[in-house]
This record gives sequence, structure tokens and C-alpha cells, in this order.
Amino acid sequence: MSLALIILAAGRGTRMNSDLPKVLHPIAQAPMLAHAMAAGRALAPERIVVVAGHGAERVRTVAQDIDPAAEVVIQDRQNGTAHAVMQARAPLAGFTGDAIVLYGDTPFISAETLARMRAARGSADIVVLGFEAADPGRYGRLVMDGDALERIVEYKDATDQERDISLCNSGLIAADAGVLFDLVEAVGNDNAAGEYYLTDIVALARQRGLRSAVVTCPEDETLGVNSRAELATADRVFQTRARAEALENAVTLMAPETVYFAFDTVIGRDSVIEPNVVFGPGVTVESGATIRAFSHLEGCHVSRGAVVGPYARLRPGVELAEDVRVGNFVEIKNATVDAGAKINHLTYIGDAHVGAGANIGAGTVTCNYDGVAKHHTEIGADAFIGSSTMLVAPVTVGAGALTASGSVITRDVEAGALAIGRAQQQNKPHWAERLRELAKLKNTKEAGTK
Amino acid sequence: MSLALIILAAGRGTRMNSDLPKVLHPIAQAPMLAHAMAAGRALAPERIVVVAGHGAERVRTVAQDIDPAAEVVIQDRQNGTAHAVMQARAPLAGFTGDAIVLYGDTPFISAETLARMRAARGSADIVVLGFEAADPGRYGRLVMDGDALERIVEYKDATDQERDISLCNSGLIAADAGVLFDLVEAVGNDNAAGEYYLTDIVALARQRGLRSAVVTCPEDETLGVNSRAELATADRVFQTRARAEALENAVTLMAPETVYFAFDTVIGRDSVIEPNVVFGPGVTVESGATIRAFSHLEGCHVSRGAVVGPYARLRPGVELAEDVRVGNFVEIKNATVDAGAKINHLTYIGDAHVGAGANIGAGTVTCNYDGVAKHHTEIGADAFIGSSTMLVAPVTVGAGALTASGSVITRDVEAGALAIGRAQQQNKPHWAERLRELAKLKNTKEAGTK
Amino acid sequence: MSLALIILAAGRGTRMNSDLPKVLHPIAQAPMLAHAMAAGRALAPERIVVVAGHGAERVRTVAQDIDPAAEVVIQDRQNGTAHAVMQARAPLAGFTGDAIVLYGDTPFISAETLARMRAARGSADIVVLGFEAADPGRYGRLVMDGDALERIVEYKDATDQERDISLCNSGLIAADAGVLFDLVEAVGNDNAAGEYYLTDIVALARQRGLRSAVVTCPEDETLGVNSRAELATADRVFQTRARAEALENAVTLMAPETVYFAFDTVIGRDSVIEPNVVFGPGVTVESGATIRAFSHLEGCHVSRGAVVGPYARLRPGVELAEDVRVGNFVEIKNATVDAGAKINHLTYIGDAHVGAGANIGAGTVTCNYDGVAKHHTEIGADAFIGSSTMLVAPVTVGAGALTASGSVITRDVEAGALAIGRAQQQNKPHWAERLRELAKLKNTKEAGTK
Repeated sequence: MSLALIILAAGRGTRMNSDLPKVLHPIAQAPMLAHAMAAGRALAPERIVVVAGHGAERVRTVAQDIDPAAEVVIQDRQNGTAHAVMQARAPLAGFTGDAIVLYGDTPFISAETLARMRAARGSADIVVLGFEAADPGRYGRLVMDGDALERIVEYKDATDQERDISLCNSGLIAADAGVLFDLVEAVGNDNAAGEYYLTDIVALARQRGLRSAVVTCPEDETLGVNSRAELATADRVFQTRARAEALENAVTLMAPETVYFAFDTVIGRDSVIEPNVVFGPGVTVESGATIRAFSHLEGCHVSRGAVVGPYARLRPGVELAEDVRVGNFVEIKNATVDAGAKINHLTYIGDAHVGAGANIGAGTVTCNYDGVAKHHTEIGADAFIGSSTMLVAPVTVGAGALTASGSVITRDVEAGALAIGRAQQQNKPHWAERLRELAKLKNTKEAGTK
Repeated sequence: MSLALIILAAGRGTRMNSDLPKVLHPIAQAPMLAHAMAAGRALAPERIVVVAGHGAERVRTVAQDIDPAAEVVIQDRQNGTAHAVMQARAPLAGFTGDAIVLYGDTPFISAETLARMRAARGSADIVVLGFEAADPGRYGRLVMDGDALERIVEYKDATDQERDISLCNSGLIAADAGVLFDLVEAVGNDNAAGEYYLTDIVALARQRGLRSAVVTCPEDETLGVNSRAELATADRVFQTRARAEALENAVTLMAPETVYFAFDTVIGRDSVIEPNVVFGPGVTVESGATIRAFSHLEGCHVSRGAVVGPYARLRPGVELAEDVRVGNFVEIKNATVDAGAKINHLTYIGDAHVGAGANIGAGTVTCNYDGVAKHHTEIGADAFIGSSTMLVAPVTVGAGALTASGSVITRDVEAGALAIGRAQQQNKPHWAERLRELAKLKNTKEAGTK
Repeated sequence: MSLALIILAAGRGTRMNSDLPKVLHPIAQAPMLAHAMAAGRALAPERIVVVAGHGAERVRTVAQDIDPAAEVVIQDRQNGTAHAVMQARAPLAGFTGDAIVLYGDTPFISAETLARMRAARGSADIVVLGFEAADPGRYGRLVMDGDALERIVEYKDATDQERDISLCNSGLIAADAGVLFDLVEAVGNDNAAGEYYLTDIVALARQRGLRSAVVTCPEDETLGVNSRAELATADRVFQTRARAEALENAVTLMAPETVYFAFDTVIGRDSVIEPNVVFGPGVTVESGATIRAFSHLEGCHVSRGAVVGPYARLRPGVELAEDVRVGNFVEIKNATVDAGAKINHLTYIGDAHVGAGANIGAGTVTCNYDGVAKHHTEIGADAFIGSSTMLVAPVTVGAGALTASGSVITRDVEAGALAIGRAQQQNKPHWAERLRELAKLKNTKEAGTK
């Protein structure tokens, strides 16, 4: 049967107190919305409708970056969850199949839970996702009648007996799309807030002789984010899981609590990650690589046997082959570095290809930007780039070539050649003292004229 | 009514085992004494008397750095808290008004608590600050008689019944200065340690028909510091609060537990602070700025839209205007950087002004020190500083000017000009192999002569 | 009496899922095996026999690196702990004295505990190390008969009554070597796994009228490591202790939980360690030094009054004398830096000696590698190395000499001289705009030809 996701992402997030729409705040470096969408997309839905409100255009951009097929509709006023779901009716006109309503600010819901909700539709018209709350507090309660869900009662409307129920409402609902919209249309707003609540459809369904059932998930999957503190907590929850998973996958983390993973970091078995490493999005590290302390990686691939850091920064577009060494205070961007090459100290390599076995001296810079565009630098296999060589791109240093330290290389260097561009050293005996005297004199004068 | 603070700061801090006087050990990068003084100064006292002992001269310097009006008297021997307070009598001769006795090693006391103590003086001669202890342990107990304080009993002198009291003594006292000194003078030292205890004034006051009252504060305000472990704990308490406050103020902290705030850090709403950022004293970050991972900031201002780091170090005197970019392995000191300028890689900028939109290439250094004094570098708007340019200060590069990479700039460059200073590149075919052979030969020879 | 250690280190560590033998996985940057050996070696044993299996050759190399006298025997199949001990019989043929059996994957056992086991041999033939388990779970239980040990019962074989015993078996055993091997030889493998268990010797000993006794230690000393998660936990346990010890020794740790110690780090009293510092093996920091944030030290010595960092990397072979300053983005390797020298920014110093009071400018590089071997750089006292000086080793800059910024120094500079090697600066008015136009044109053309 076909599936449509209806993702509610219009909430203002007043307590976030942000110019950024709430669902775009990141957890593990991906917008919350992306986490919710990823769980939903794992079920291969035919349609994805995101109901946006505050910052709708930014939400649209992000949603469609993640999935170009995502449709974004706008809820122009905040009028309750049923009202939000109603916005999806028009874009889903003609759609037949199931719909699952999920939330852009509930990032930890798992694909497996959504799949179980869907499966449960086989024996129920409406499937509500519930959870056993350790501390039910002010959550809505699920009132059961045998194994059918009788109704959802809001905490403030609940009797003492109902408040003793620990099975709580997550807000997620699965139903036939047509049935869902019919029920939602019947929801009224006769309540203190004057809003339309999606939860009311359960009682309406019962009135119509429809059966509601409950699927449960661990409470932490339903974790919602409403403030920066909760955002930070959610990130910590993610990190704790990611660290445990890496250890489970036989990665050595010397100090797991100091390693920051992105939502999509992949680390191979028997790799070693030292303390204080930050992974941005898009990083894969093969088995048997070492990422040393204080390194920062984004959008890059590190091969087996490579050693990165300490204090190495790999930016997007970097591909390190086997046994490459990248050392301290080195930045690499958009570059392929072939097997066994060494870039050990204080270097910037951008828009470049470094051949196998090449050795890049300290202080080397690929001058890739001419003020207008970026240009490519090609360094051949086994080339030796002397310290503080400026490689003014576009430029090629051939295989096995040398550049003398302190040279500015503006023209290509053929394979096996030496390129040198520097002034002759002159020694001037006794000048050090004279220059110091001069400096003192000058500084005294300057002080005098101030 | 006038107010005098008497700050006891003479303690040896034996368990600190330090050459630094105990009250000068820092919490959140300010001496403990500064925290206590800050709370007290919020009440706008007419007089501040710091009673110093160990390391008195260093204590004086710090106290008067914080408030030049602070007076420092020396307690030449450690003879109890009453004896310490007595040292303030001479400097406060002629002073009329209230005195509050507080402690240099109790850094978390709040101005609000001190204000309540002062207010309570309206209905009591002596106001003692107490707290409900979760685990009263060996604290002195406050024995109440209705809502009046009868006396303070030391744990070791307390009956079992008194030990059941959970209301404990913080040591802070407010009283009319004249009354305080009269009472303190009457304190004896007939006890095991032969010391004069300030707490004894409560019983003496009662004998004289004076009324003592208690004001309470949360226990954590009374946290004292007596060892490095307690110092670390106090810092952690501070950090926990500062992180919670930043989140409350709508700052995004990706990993709050890895961000270190100084006592006076100010971060605007909707700014993003990545993991592993350290703030030294004197930092303000406007709303909507981003401080990336592994950055270190001290004494600087970061404007809206600016992005700093990763691995950026901003030292005192740095002012970044809107939308400035400071990248990795960049150190900036005593410099103003105008809107939109970019300093992205491996650069040292010191004693400089960088104009709007200027682009500073990797490896650039402002050579600001001639061995005698520091000099200024001026970089004009939209200037383009080529990689590894040495700017030998004092020097000016005009607006829109270019410097060729690898140039040493010792003379001013007019607006729109190109400055270049580098040797011609020469390529020597086949020399790479010859040089390698030479190196091998030389190394063999050297090995042979060892 | 003579002592032999029998260290069982053959375990496969299936749950480690690693190519590295389990006992070589590091805790606090030393292999687990090294921790166990260190505890044992504190008792000055005459013989050390390591029983290796998986990865035996790598285990041999590490064991003999730690103690060249260590003998490594190979257990060619995993057939139980008694079988493992039996492998030590041949190398210990002729040895008379006590033997202690300990484990390569139980790294926290203390020398003091081993010494107590040895002492207890005075009144017992067999001494078993036990511990009171907070949660005895599935540990083997020690069944006592008065103060003698009757037998060790495996959890799965234990009666309910035996399972109520909280005194558990650590696996460590001390006995006369001859007695031990005789007993071990008698152990059978009539059990579900078909393995030979060392624990069985206690019952066998009792049958022979030998007396077994128990020595206990804190449970955490018996912590074993069987997975990456447990490895990380063990490292955290180590760090927690090391941090507490440093605080106890009057070191200031601003944020103790962010400082990573190696197994052998030594920090003097009144030193200050800022947040996010990583110590590799072999570091000693004298009293009164400061290690600033984000620093990384290995195999180096930092003297009193020195200030290192932030972002300083000291590699093996570095010796910093008193009051040296090493600043940000500086790497130093195999170098002695004399008193008061300053290396403040963006510099690589390798294989060098820096004289007292010398000042090394930003961007300086000792070009120590010619592609074949490393060479030495000598910098004299009070020399002033201008920014971005390339020192092409082997080379000497004399005392008090200056090098001009941007110079490549290939020849020695005598004391007091100025060395300069750079092209004359030329200013070309109005060229900036022309070059920008040129770049635009070129970039447009390139785009056109793609």
C-alpha cells in the first residue's frame, strides 16, 4: 500500500527564542527535520508533505535539499495539530493509501518504530504511538479498552484515575489518509486554547465504530526539543549512542566522551580516535586509521593506515589514500592525497592533487585563489616540496621534482627538476647590534613625537 | 546608610599547598577574591577593607586592581576570624554605618544575598547568614529562639540535640560597624585552638540585649575552597551555571560541557558555540556569530555574522566587525578587523588594522616586533595580501592594493598598487636526482666521521 | 625468596574484535600488559614469563621492550588458564621460589596487593586474591572454611547458598612454583568447555593437605578488559585517579575532566594545566609551569616558569628550560630550548638547540630534512630570528645575530651579524586593478574552454 508522510514542522518554538525555525536547529550537525525525514524515508513513502509555518521558505529549502520530492505546504497560523494536518489535505488530494503524521521536532523516532506502526494498521483503523513514561507528568494519557485505544485524554482534563496511567501519547498517528482527513475535519476547537487537536480524532473514530490501537516505543524515541537546553540534551543523547555504537564496532575511542560525531560519521574497525576529535558531516574513516587529538574532519575520506593529526583539519572534498600522514596545523581542502604522501606541518593544501610518496615541507601554501577564482595545484609522485614553498596555482610540480625552501613557484616544474627562486643570503658582520641601536633610537624618537 | 565591606582574605590555605595566596587562586579565570569583591561591590559600599595575611602584597595588588579604593590591612598572625575582623578597626576608625564581613574564599556568595542581609539589619542588630545543609556534618549550627538567633554552636561543642539542627552557619555577618567592633573586642580565646572566633559575638550580643537574626541562602552560595580539588569543583559549579545561563539566553552550545566560560563572558542570542571553545576574560560575542571548535578567545569583541575558527585564537584587543571570517591556525592580537575581511589560514596579525573586505593569504605575518618595540600595520579596505607576505611594521598597504605571495613588504604600498619582492624562479632540469645523490653522499660521509 | 611472575597474555579477546592482541590495547597510552608487568616488576622478580598466544610475536616485542629479561612462551591453543600456566613450566625448570600468576588484561592490580599476596605465603601454601564484589553476578565464589579457603566454585556450579557469598575470585594466585606446577598438572578438563581451569588447584591442594588462604583487594583493582567499551572505561578509571592525584599534589587543573594523562605523567606542585591538554608518554612538568589550553605534549620536559600553549605541540626529545615561552601553532621536536627563549607563533623547530633569550619569529621553520636525513640547527643566545626565516640545516646562527624576515639561511651566521636574503620590494602603481582584470579575463577564458 502507498504511504504518505505528513511532517508537522510549523511550530514557532517560542522557547527556542531564535531567528532560525525550530526544526532547522541541528542535532549532530543535521537539522532536526532531517532526522525525522530520514526515519520516515526509510519506509520508502510515495509522498512527503512537510507542513511549515515560521520560516517556511528556509524549511522548504532544507526539506527539498534532503529530498527534492518533498512538498512543503504552509500553515499560515498556528491553530493546533489537527489544523496543521489539514493543510496536507490539498496536496494529498487523490492520494490513496496510509498516512503517518510525524513531527519535525521529534528527531529520535526510529524507522523501525514507524514500520511497526504501519504494520499495526493491518488490524486497526488508527494507530497511535505511545510510550511508557518513567515520569508521566503532564503528558496526554492513552486510555485503553482491552487492547483497543478508547481515547486520548489531556493531562489537564484527566481524572485522578486517568492520571495514574503511565502509557502516554507521543502524538504520532498512522491511518488511511482518507479516513484521517475525514476525522480531522470533524475536530472542533471547543477548548481553552481554541485550537484544533489531532488527538481528538481517536474519540471521533470510536464514535464512528473505527478501531484504534497503540504501538509503543522506548520513551527516548519520543524526546522533543523545545529549548536550547533540550537541543543540547538531544545532541548529547545522540553522541552517547554514536559513541557506544563506535565502541561496539571495535573502534578504539581513548576518551569517548570527547569525540563528537556527526549524524552520518562512519568509522572502521580497529581505527583509533584520540581525545578531542570533531567530525563534521560526510566523514568516512576506513579500518586501521588513526585520528589523533584535536583534529577536525568534514566531508572527507581517510584510508587504512593513514594517520591524521594532532591538530589536522580536513575540509570537504579531501580524499586521503592509504598510509598518508597529515600532521599538525595542516589544513587540507578539496584535494586528493595519494598513498604514503606526507604533509606534516603548518601547511595549507587546497584544490590540489598530491602524488604518492610526495613530501610537503612545513609552511607550504597552495596559493589557489587569485582574488577571482580558485585554481588547481598538481604535485607529482615523490616530489619534495621545500619548506615555505608558495605554489601559485594553476601550477604543476612534476614527479620527483624538488622545490627549494622559500621559493615562490609560478611556473610548472618538470619531473626530476629543481625549482628555486630565492635571493642570495648575505651576512653583514656586526650589523645586529647596529640595528638594535637604530631600533632603540627610532622607538625613542617615536615616543618623543607622540 | 553607609556600608563597609570587611573581606577576610588572610587564610593560609594549608591544604592548597601553594605559593599563591589562597584567595588569588582563580575560578573561571578570576581570583576567588574578585568574585567575593564583585558580590560586595554590587551594594556600592563606601569602604572596602581586605584583611590579608599570607602573600599580603600580592593580595593588595589584585584587590586594588579590582578596586583602587580597596584598602588592605595585614593580619600578621592567624589568630581566628574575630582577630582578623579586628584588623579592620583602625582603617574604619570614624566610619559610621553598617559592616558586612565576608570571605575571600567563598566566591559564590551573591549580591542578592548580601542585599537581603543588609535589609534584614532593619529589624536586627546582628544578621548572620545561614543555610539549610543537605548534610550538616561538622558545620557550626544556628540555635534559634523563635525567629531570633540565640547563638552559634560549633559542631564539636554541640549536644546531640543541637547536632540535629540542619540550619548551619556560613560565617557571614552584618552589623553596625561600631557594634561589631565592640563585640569583637570582647571575644576571648579560651578554647582548644586559642583563637578568637567571630561566631562568639552572637552570644555576646545576646548578653547585651542585642537581637540577632538569620538570613538564609542556598547552600551552594556558601561553598568554600580549601584544596585544589575544591577549587576544581568550584570552577565546575561556575561552568555549569554559565552554560545553563547561555542556553537560557538562546545561545546554541553544541556540547555545553566542553565550553569554558570566564567570569565575564557575554554571548548574544542565536550565536552558535561549537565544541571545545575556551573563553578567557573580557570576551563579548554579539548575536548571530559563530565560534567554531577548538577556538580560544580573550579580551575581544566578535560582531554579528562573524565566523571564528576552528582553531582560531583571538587575543586581547581584537575587535572583529560584522561578517569577518577568521579561520584555522590564525592568531590575532591587538587589531581591528573591519566588516567582511577574511583571515582564513595560518596567519599572525598583531598590532594592526585590517580594512573592510580585505583578504589575507595563508602564512601572512605582521612582523610587529623589531626586538625593541611593537609597530603598527595598516591594511586598506579590499586589499589582497598574498600568501606568506611578511609585513614589516610600521607599514601601510593601501586600499585595493595587492602584495605578491612570498613578498617581504618593508615600504608602504599605495592604494591600488602591486607590491612584489621575490626572486625569479629558476628550473634546473634533472637536478633533483643529483641533489638527492649529493645528500646521500654527504649523509654517508657525516656518518663516517662520527 | 626468589620470585617468578607468570603473566597470562594469550587470550584472544574475541569481543575486542581486533587485529591487535588484546593485551596490547593501551590504557593511558601504555599497553595493558605494561600495566600488569609494572605492578609485578615492583616486587623485583627474578623471572618474568609471559604466556602469549594470539599475536605472540607482537606481544614478545612489547614485553621485551618493557623488560629485556622477560621470557615469552607460546600457548599454541586456548585450553584454559591451567593449561596456560603449564606453558611456563619448561622455562621455569630449575627455578626455586614463589610464583605469582597474574593477567595481562587486568591492568589495575597494584604492586601493594601483589606484595601482600607474597607476604601471605608465609602462612599458606596457596594464596588466592579475592575481592568483595558489590554485585557478585557471575564471578566465581570463594568458599571459606574459617580463615582458610576451601575451594573456588564457578557461578554456574554454585548452590544458592554459595551464590550468596560476595567474596569473589580475581584469578590471581601465589604459590611455591614447584607446588603450583604439580597441582596444575593434576587439573583435569572434565567440564562443559573441556578446558583446564587454574581455579581447580585449590580443591586439589586441599586434598593434598595444603592450606589455601585469601588476600583481598578493592574490587576496582580486578577490573578486566574484554571489549572496546571496557577499554574506554578502564582508561576513564585511570584518568579519574590520575586527575585526583594531580589535584592532591597541588596542581591546578582548571577543568580536570578535560586533561588526559599518560601512565607516567609527572606534574609539579603549583603548575597550572588549562582545559583540553593531552599528555603523551614521558612528560615531566616542573613546579610552577603553565600548560595552556589545547596543548599536546609527549616525551618532553618543561621547567619551572615556562609557559606552553595554547595550541603548542611538544614532541619527544624536547627540553624546555626555565621561563621559556612556546606559543600557538608551534611544533617542537628533539630540541633543547634554553632559559627565557621565546617561540611564540606558527613555527616548526626540529633537531635544534635554541640559546637562552633567543626570539624566534612567526613562521620560522628549521628545514631539518633534506630528503635523506635530518640535520641540526644551532641558534645562539639572544639571537633574533625574523619571521618566516627558513633555517636550512645543518646551520648555525650565532649569539645575538639577526636574520631578516623572509630570509632563507643556508650558510652559518656569525655572532652579532645580520643575515639577509630577500629580493628588493618593488611597487607597481595601479597594477592591482590590471591584475584583477587579467584574472577575470583568464578565468572567463578558462570557463569558456571547458
